[in-house]
Amino acid sequence: MTSSTDTDLHTAKLKLVRLGIDTYHENVAYLHRDCEIYRAEGFQALSKVKVCGDSRRILAVLNVVDDAAIVALDELALSEEAFDHLGLSEGQWVAVDHAQPPASMDAVRRKIAGRRLNQQDYRSIIQDITESRYSKTEISAFLVASGQTDMDRDEVLYLTQAMLDSGERLNWDEPQVVDKHCIGGIPGNRTSMLVVPIVAAHGMLIPKTSSRAITSPAGTADTMEVLANVEINIGKLHDIVRKQRGCMIWGGTARLSPADDILISVERPLGIDSQGQMVASILSKKLAAGSTHLLIDIPVGATAKIRHMREAQRLRKLFEYVGDQLDIQLEVVITDGRQPVGNGIGPALEARDVMQVLQNDPLAPNDLRQKALWLAGRVLEFDPDVRGGHGFAMARDILDCGRALEKMNAIIAAQGVQTNRYPLGQLAHDILAPANGVVTAIDNFQMARIARFAGAPMDKGAGVDLFKKLGEPVEKDEPLYRLYAEFPSDFKFALALCEQASGYTIGQQVDITRAFVEF
Amino acid sequence: MTSSTDTDLHTAKLKLVRLGIDTYHENVAYLHRDCEIYRAEGFQALSKVKVCGDSRRILAVLNVVDDAAIVALDELALSEEAFDHLGLSEGQWVAVDHAQPPASMDAVRRKIAGRRLNQQDYRSIIQDITESRYSKTEISAFLVASGQTDMDRDEVLYLTQAMLDSGERLNWDEPQVVDKHCIGGIPGNRTSMLVVPIVAAHGMLIPKTSSRAITSPAGTADTMEVLANVEINIGKLHDIVRKQRGCMIWGGTARLSPADDILISVERPLGIDSQGQMVASILSKKLAAGSTHLLIDIPVGATAKIRHMREAQRLRKLFEYVGDQLDIQLEVVITDGRQPVGNGIGPALEARDVMQVLQNDPLAPNDLRQKALWLAGRVLEFDPDVRGGHGFAMARDILDCGRALEKMNAIIAAQGVQTNRYPLGQLAHDILAPANGVVTAIDNFQMARIARFAGAPMDKGAGVDLFKKLGEPVEKDEPLYRLYAEFPSDFKFALALCEQASGYTIGQQVDITRAFVEF
Repeated sequence: MTSSTDTDLHTAKLKLVRLGIDTYHENVAYLHRDCEIYRAEGFQALSKVKVCGDSRRILAVLNVVDDAAIVALDELALSEEAFDHLGLSEGQWVAVDHAQPPASMDAVRRKIAGRRLNQQDYRSIIQDITESRYSKTEISAFLVASGQTDMDRDEVLYLTQAMLDSGERLNWDEPQVVDKHCIGGIPGNRTSMLVVPIVAAHGMLIPKTSSRAITSPAGTADTMEVLANVEINIGKLHDIVRKQRGCMIWGGTARLSPADDILISVERPLGIDSQGQMVASILSKKLAAGSTHLLIDIPVGATAKIRHMREAQRLRKLFEYVGDQLDIQLEVVITDGRQPVGNGIGPALEARDVMQVLQNDPLAPNDLRQKALWLAGRVLEFDPDVRGGHGFAMARDILDCGRALEKMNAIIAAQGVQTNRYPLGQLAHDILAPANGVVTAIDNFQMARIARFAGAPMDKGAGVDLFKKLGEPVEKDEPLYRLYAEFPSDFKFALALCEQASGYTIGQQVDITRAFVEF
Repeated sequence: MTSSTDTDLHTAKLKLVRLGIDTYHENVAYLHRDCEIYRAEGFQALSKVKVCGDSRRILAVLNVVDDAAIVALDELALSEEAFDHLGLSEGQWVAVDHAQPPASMDAVRRKIAGRRLNQQDYRSIIQDITESRYSKTEISAFLVASGQTDMDRDEVLYLTQAMLDSGERLNWDEPQVVDKHCIGGIPGNRTSMLVVPIVAAHGMLIPKTSSRAITSPAGTADTMEVLANVEINIGKLHDIVRKQRGCMIWGGTARLSPADDILISVERPLGIDSQGQMVASILSKKLAAGSTHLLIDIPVGATAKIRHMREAQRLRKLFEYVGDQLDIQLEVVITDGRQPVGNGIGPALEARDVMQVLQNDPLAPNDLRQKALWLAGRVLEFDPDVRGGHGFAMARDILDCGRALEKMNAIIAAQGVQTNRYPLGQLAHDILAPANGVVTAIDNFQMARIARFAGAPMDKGAGVDLFKKLGEPVEKDEPLYRLYAEFPSDFKFALALCEQASGYTIGQQVDITRAFVEF
């Protein structure tokens, strides 16, 4: 038989094109159905292809295109992120090949079958995920398989270690680098922006890298960005931290635990948030950021991420176990998660609350102030020179005498004052109380969703401003909160959601659930 | 405060455009980043949007577009399948809204948490999946959560029933409608194309609807298509079946258990194939096709889907339990799955094998003939007038005297003789034995993969033709099999794969694993 290979085959190539489509954390390649070289449909059901050129390669999901205006017959197009990952220029020659399923999917299938995975398994899985070898469906399979009922403490440790090893690690060359982190789920809970200036003013090193919101209406980075530049390169970052002892920047550029960002992008929209994944996600990020001492805030409430004290205690033990093994000094506090903290929900509104507290403004939300002082006090007590129980009073003194505000302003100046103005959204509407009574419940999840629909965090002036908190008396038709939006379509979406469910329950004082927590 | 809603908001609409991109079983919507009406990025992280117009609506994953040549600022584009699902015309007005996560995802999250779901839960999940409310990541989450360790027998029954109810159901108005089905995984195993003519020649009703290959190199529909038209509408189908007592058509147009097609499109590339899913998939399809009597073939072998007899027995019990509850008379046979059946792998090669057997050609692969006769015999014994144990001899008589061939030709004529010619691929290459010895193993999975890489099933003439089977002696450099391809790129991929691993093991007679199965 003839074996007519090799002559023309290895030169069979397509011209690379960057297609202006943002496919959100998934590499997508586009081939014309009648592509001159490859049988596009033959690849499709197998879900992934390998795109190679000039000794670089990526894996991508294949979409078949029927319009030569999008992709010509001699071209291969990549979505924006995929194009960046491959790192070649338009017009360079690329070849397409069958993608081997990632080798570590064998381990995922063992996990699905209920078996325990070892350290090497987690390493391989996280490496393959970091190198974009997993499709979103494969990531989903891993997340579910390693979900809450199925990962023991040591597996959580292996996963954390693997995620930590997947990226860069910051080194501050100091014996004590402190941080605090909340597991999330409580809108408006912007205590970090108070804890950092208080603790830095005391002289402890607290270089805070944080994320932007994914499915919540504001992250610390989104809120800080109302006041200052948060996209700082590593060189400048060290400079700022050395001088100011603290910072509040977006951690996205630093490649800290990059696997975490990929996992979260699938996990959040699925609404699954297992304890093991949460611990691995938080601790890998904090260890990568160079923290030696960490305070974890676990809010408990009917509409918080953690709904029962027993769950909170279980999560606390898991944090402690993994933290101890990875040599980070870790304290866990369980807090009141029954309602949003502060008044504002959304970047501009939350930034306003924070600045009011720092300025000792009488309008400042007292719950935010008290919680921040209490957390800052616990962080201050990581200092060997601070006597146990004295932290709160020290934090209060630093705040009251204006040193925290001074430090905040210095950090803002160092990072670069925000030159854009972010006024509150021009579209506004008040949601009124349906009856006389007291506020007996505020649904964290619904309030976050309303603020999100209104445009937060992308539109910084969008969100919700709460006028009434738990236990406060209200009269019929008195405003409960005000909705702010910048765009008519968002305003309409948020109003429709408020009409469906305002997020507030009005009843009698006795109906209020009691909180049995430290704060 | 002003409440500037309603006037212009509800008319805020975009022009619908069909984008020539085939996103394979997932609805994708495309919005320009600077869309005039909606903030595209605000939707993206939440993974899905609702597209509505003219009282029709679909859910879709959102891709953000930066190129107005793909989507203009006042347009909303849909991928081809999404456009068809929505069912509107280009240029019609559509609105975009936040998609509620499908309500049944709550049940999926309960399943992830290890709980048992009830009948209503499975109904809701399957209904949401059928109506394209699940993204692929959500489907993946459901598949993994309901995977093998986590679904009890009654849950499998609920799932089967829900899948059955999700689509149409054929009614043949006869007391006995027989079928046979293999769970798959064995290349070349085209026994259905022999069982149908034999059984129909006997006069029993066997209207076979089958699938096209998804990740295998050929399905019965792909192979039958080499000989006859397989895309038959329901009206004509009844006509053919009434006259011929049998048919072999593609079931895709009939909307039988449509949820199954969606689940399989995610499950196969993931390489997860849980017993519960398999039973629900097969039985829902067969019940929807109107079968009253069903023979299930479970091949067992080291490279088959089922690797151990204990697994095969467990699967058999599950089939029997669910089949009994759903009132289908079901027989399970466990067969030798150590190697491919017949010689050819790929549509044209498999069709050749089938026709050789029907023509009593001395070159016909005997293993395919024997297995088909044995299965046909078991199906014939569903006939109350056939004495137990007499089926095999009856089947053999029908085949030997040419009645099966006659029936096959009649069915081909009734469905419409294939007008295209499908010769074997022009690119061919022989894979040679590396040493003297006997064939001790043939890897089903690898042979299927090689044939698939060579272009099967899309290129009907592509595939693999086996010259040596288990136990046959070979000399060094004697051909083991021949590779056929139609396209140079596929030929190259397949050759590279053969070089990696030929799929054959050459050793001593004593190394051959024994098969302890019924056939």
